[in-house]
Amino acid sequence: MPQPSLQPTVLWLTGYSGAGKTTISDLLKAALVEAGSTSVVLDGDQIRRGLCSDLSFSDADRTENIRRVAEVARVLVNSGVVTIVALISPLHKDREMARAKFEAGSFVEIFVDTPLAVAEARDVKGLYRRARAGQLTQFTGVDSAYEPPLQPEIHINTTVLSATEAAHRILLYLRQNRSALRYGSL
Amino acid sequence: MPQPSLQPTVLWLTGYSGAGKTTISDLLKAALVEAGSTSVVLDGDQIRRGLCSDLSFSDADRTENIRRVAEVARVLVNSGVVTIVALISPLHKDREMARAKFEAGSFVEIFVDTPLAVAEARDVKGLYRRARAGQLTQFTGVDSAYEPPLQPEIHINTTVLSATEAAHRILLYLRQNRSALRYGSL
Repeated sequence: MPQPSLQPTVLWLTGYSGAGKTTISDLLKAALVEAGSTSVVLDGDQIRRGLCSDLSFSDADRTENIRRVAEVARVLVNSGVVTIVALISPLHKDREMARAKFEAGSFVEIFVDTPLAVAEARDVKGLYRRARAGQLTQFTGVDSAYEPPLQPEIHINTTVLSATEAAHRILLYLRQNRSALRYGSL
Repeated sequence: MPQPSLQPTVLWLTGYSGAGKTTISDLLKAALVEAGSTSVVLDGDQIRRGLCSDLSFSDADRTENIRRVAEVARVLVNSGVVTIVALISPLHKDREMARAKFEAGSFVEIFVDTPLAVAEARDVKGLYRRARAGQLTQFTGVDSAYEPPLQPEIHINTTVLSATEAAHRILLYLRQNRSALRYGSL
């Protein structure tokens, strides 16, 4: 279990559609809330239906999508909320743009590493099928690039770890690196 | 003091620039946090520098500004956060658009009623002076309309109440109407 009091942090989960970002995020949030830390999930699919419903999947609009999510996360982190972002965020430059909005240490990049073939074989939402059929364009992994993080703070290999194990791995990181008590007791 | 546990609510403060929305919001947030409720302020000036830095003050962009803030507030309220919005939000239709995104009771419209002449006389940020000099356009109260709420849940007359008294009035409303315990004990 994490400490009841965590330093405000954004946990930025990146990976292919279907990699497991939302599942891990929901488990994380539940564990954080149970431990007494208010937590908010900013989920790509949800954001696309709400805050960013005016945006397409062009490179420029993806950048704007990521910018807006990062700005919301910044407001939340500044208010003491542990913020979980579940967003494909395929390009290195956009993730770095997001990171640059936060103090060192408070932006934790988490690579939810599910190989494309595995995510596509699952295809829980049927999106890969539609993308391969040409019914969806600009779909990451099909006709739009994904650049894996080079030095993520946490690398989750989902072919080895279950979603629950992944959430535990991230909570352990938080406890070791982002506990408010850690600083109080030094 | 409010109950430790409040039903998630958005407190939507509307009024002229310089009416006192931010001051009241910051007092409210501090009181809520002290009482154990996580609270986030979405402040117009801050949002304009971050999330909505791409928008102008045209009617269409004001609507988009309000839409985005309402969508963020919806995500937060759904995560259990008491969300305070401090936004001029001058038009009735835009405030109703925001209200429609929330369940009945969870959207609390608060009219921070400072007469234009009073807000302009204070002119803490020097904006009215710049607007009257033609250096700012589309400025609410100068060359852009403000439509007062017709039936706000809370009406704060700032020529009678101090900011602290206004915050107490709002906390009382929350305790009476949005306490989670209230329902548990009925």
